[in-house]
Amino acid sequence: MKRLELLDTTLRDGAQAEGISFSVHDKLVIVETLDDLGIPLIEAGNPGSNPKDLAFFEAVAAQPLKQARIAAFGATCRPKLAPADDANLQSLLQAGTGVVVIFGKSWSLHVTEVLRTTLAENLRIIRDTVAWLKGRGRRVIFDAEHFFDGWKSSPDYALQAVAAAAEAGADVVCLCETNGGCFPGEVACGTAAVVERLAGRAVVGIHTHNDAGLGIANTLAAVEAGATHVQGTLAGFGERCGNANLAGLIGNLQLKLGYTCIPGPRLPMLTSAVRRVAEVANIVLADDMPFVGRKAFAHKAGMHMDGVKKCSVSFEHVPPESVGNARRFLMSEVAGRSAVVDRIRELAPDIDKHDPIVERVVKRLKELENEGYQFEGADGSFELLIRKALGTYQPFFRLERFRILGERPSANPEAGSVAMVKIVVGEAEEVTAEEGNGPVNALDRGLRKALDRFYPRLAEARLTDYKVRVLDGAAAAAAKVRVLIESTDGQRVWSTVGVSTDIIEASWIALVDAIEYKLFHDREEAPAAAAP
Amino acid sequence: MKRLELLDTTLRDGAQAEGISFSVHDKLVIVETLDDLGIPLIEAGNPGSNPKDLAFFEAVAAQPLKQARIAAFGATCRPKLAPADDANLQSLLQAGTGVVVIFGKSWSLHVTEVLRTTLAENLRIIRDTVAWLKGRGRRVIFDAEHFFDGWKSSPDYALQAVAAAAEAGADVVCLCETNGGCFPGEVACGTAAVVERLAGRAVVGIHTHNDAGLGIANTLAAVEAGATHVQGTLAGFGERCGNANLAGLIGNLQLKLGYTCIPGPRLPMLTSAVRRVAEVANIVLADDMPFVGRKAFAHKAGMHMDGVKKCSVSFEHVPPESVGNARRFLMSEVAGRSAVVDRIRELAPDIDKHDPIVERVVKRLKELENEGYQFEGADGSFELLIRKALGTYQPFFRLERFRILGERPSANPEAGSVAMVKIVVGEAEEVTAEEGNGPVNALDRGLRKALDRFYPRLAEARLTDYKVRVLDGAAAAAAKVRVLIESTDGQRVWSTVGVSTDIIEASWIALVDAIEYKLFHDREEAPAAAAP
Repeated sequence: MKRLELLDTTLRDGAQAEGISFSVHDKLVIVETLDDLGIPLIEAGNPGSNPKDLAFFEAVAAQPLKQARIAAFGATCRPKLAPADDANLQSLLQAGTGVVVIFGKSWSLHVTEVLRTTLAENLRIIRDTVAWLKGRGRRVIFDAEHFFDGWKSSPDYALQAVAAAAEAGADVVCLCETNGGCFPGEVACGTAAVVERLAGRAVVGIHTHNDAGLGIANTLAAVEAGATHVQGTLAGFGERCGNANLAGLIGNLQLKLGYTCIPGPRLPMLTSAVRRVAEVANIVLADDMPFVGRKAFAHKAGMHMDGVKKCSVSFEHVPPESVGNARRFLMSEVAGRSAVVDRIRELAPDIDKHDPIVERVVKRLKELENEGYQFEGADGSFELLIRKALGTYQPFFRLERFRILGERPSANPEAGSVAMVKIVVGEAEEVTAEEGNGPVNALDRGLRKALDRFYPRLAEARLTDYKVRVLDGAAAAAAKVRVLIESTDGQRVWSTVGVSTDIIEASWIALVDAIEYKLFHDREEAPAAAAP
Repeated sequence: MKRLELLDTTLRDGAQAEGISFSVHDKLVIVETLDDLGIPLIEAGNPGSNPKDLAFFEAVAAQPLKQARIAAFGATCRPKLAPADDANLQSLLQAGTGVVVIFGKSWSLHVTEVLRTTLAENLRIIRDTVAWLKGRGRRVIFDAEHFFDGWKSSPDYALQAVAAAAEAGADVVCLCETNGGCFPGEVACGTAAVVERLAGRAVVGIHTHNDAGLGIANTLAAVEAGATHVQGTLAGFGERCGNANLAGLIGNLQLKLGYTCIPGPRLPMLTSAVRRVAEVANIVLADDMPFVGRKAFAHKAGMHMDGVKKCSVSFEHVPPESVGNARRFLMSEVAGRSAVVDRIRELAPDIDKHDPIVERVVKRLKELENEGYQFEGADGSFELLIRKALGTYQPFFRLERFRILGERPSANPEAGSVAMVKIVVGEAEEVTAEEGNGPVNALDRGLRKALDRFYPRLAEARLTDYKVRVLDGAAAAAAKVRVLIESTDGQRVWSTVGVSTDIIEASWIALVDAIEYKLFHDREEAPAAAAP
């Protein structure tokens, strides 16, 4: 089995994509997802260019990881400066990671026209930076920016630049196809030249972009030419047209070409991991994404369905379940049954996998997915779904009615909306109203106010995140929306989901789940204090 | 100059994608778009499997085309049937096109397991069908379905199948990578083997899919091995993960590899043609689509912007204007002053970089960013911000008041919200109301209804995406939200942004910008038709 070392840069190169902006909490969730999937290296930010990244590096150091190592990213020292005098490099050390990724110039044009220094000074910069970081005990990955463009226009200099990094002690020399415009043949030749030049002194890596639609092909060409370290982003997020997506690379390399990228048993987690990263980034994944997209194994033509039923390889290049995806004939969704069994056992450890409850949960899951629900980012709602199937669910309250009124201009913008709520708990009714700075806020406050006298511990919980996703872009404001809510009571964090054509109703569904989740867990912790 | 013959199959293979269903009118608009772009062959439907396609073929015969030829698509005759006795082949002739595309089996597994006939009978089927169509004066393109999977498992038989088509007179033998799972090396070898075997008796073509993320790479590999006919879909629509997209192929082949695919002067129409096809198909194009995506030349990292300004090739693989796309410096406080100057000059070319307007825009940008605005994904709103600073802005209408009422349970969930809107245009007032399936939908519809009699061209524009981001996670439902709206009128795509603690107000701000953007551009296009 041939081994490859993967590095995911969703948190760094991915964050350079338009529309992506990660909070520290978002970053921690992505680290956990990548760690669970078995990605060994996670490039997590540039502490020099983004001071708030330091807060993240402190937080991640306190988070126990199963196997992944975190890498900080930064530039080589500036011209005419010693590494020790460069504040960005000092920040890089401060991040406290065992692995650092350092990018430097290898295209002569960039040295003279962009960095505006001499070719010799650039080699000095590379050598000094790598040696200085090695001297401080770091594992050093040198990213040779624009290597292939450099190699095409001035091959000797490009090779000198990567050789300088290797001679100064870089553990990995990663060849970057920064502009995304090269062809597989060019990438193969350039990589082979470096493999020969470095003669085993450093691991050779590859980092490609998708501007010509060749991100995956170029990475595969480099691996064939001897690269054994592969950089990309799990879902393909990145500058412009994105980075080579690791999901597609893992699918091709591990299922078809005999490489080990992640532990084999984790391969079926691939689809859910990609979707979770996209969910956190609040980016709509392309349905036609290879291997993991919703349409990747969707068959519409009758002849294709017929062929697949007779013999699945007739219209499928890999088995969909091998990457945790599912075959779909038109609208029917197929859920991962064994994943469902595992989740049910967290609540009811003795459930057998043939228990009819499993079937009930799978069926309900399919129904809800067809309506636009997605439970990868909503574990709280999924737990409630299981409780309902187990028969242990009982509602804590019932909504009689709500009304919301919003008006602009408003005398007080902090109270531009008002919600009237009527609920029933056991035999008791409660009617109340509350203002808010928007309709969801008014509704959230009104509902909590109505429930307060029945469930005083609800005051501990609060919403920490609120995301809205339009499900059918083409219909936009008239389309279905999915609302994801994240809540915490200081100890636990849970997420819930609601889907509706009405953003208020979708929010209501997710709010109710969020409150019920809290009430269930409170009751199980302290039965004596349980509600009626 | 090396020539390639392109065939677009958006109307046939593209229509096999989930969520796509073309009316006859849609098909005619797409034919016109492809013809204008200079695509020489348009595969337009399967009259055998879809009888209503015949209505389209009649309509298209009456539509004068600049240069394109229309092809009808169908299967080889059924086992044990003569072509003349096969109703599907009769329908194919009835379509009345000078060119026909016929697909047949070349993978032995498909012959025995799916078609369930003998290998010899399949060769008879291919020969008879091709010869019969040639005898009726058609130009015949033979699509060898699953050619590469067939060639990998049983190379002799795959070659016999394509040779049978060529010997029977096929003008083009097109090798189909139907399942999308092969690698460029395999495609290159298989294509080379066919080129050698046919020895010039027929043109060799290539048709690939994107299931492994290699659709473009595989097509390029086949072209390098001697294929001179290329099939794909302009925007990449197709079964599962889609077909090789012609937009990316044209970009690579024509701009970088010296092939002529479409007339050179039409290359700058590429981006708008792809967007028009997507618009008709009612599919949201991926922003990161190579060459033609909205993000394809978007720069966010300050260092990249700096590099592009010093020397555009430093971070761009081709000039964006060469394919009719545009460079975008994403506006953020880190973008820096010179990016702002460039953007202002697009509206007012003579502005000096020391003009006080620049300072005013930068100051306003910072203020708004402090309030939570983000303009990197909202170029429409940023343009309006500049217009306000330039003094060329004047409002098209004024909001007097809106009220929104929402209620659950609701007798009709599709009309659970109602918005009352009062606006003023010049001296005229308009009061109206509209229902919606949610508050934003009701408000959007109400506002457009109120404006309709003043600005009828607004009917061309619609929302294509709606995103909500909570800015301060810790405060969640009480926090500020940022709403991003994407709109299109079929030609242009623009994004606008609004920020408020009230999701309704944030949506309102973004909606108003979206409408004003459209009105400004309409007025500048056709001053005579301008509004009051």
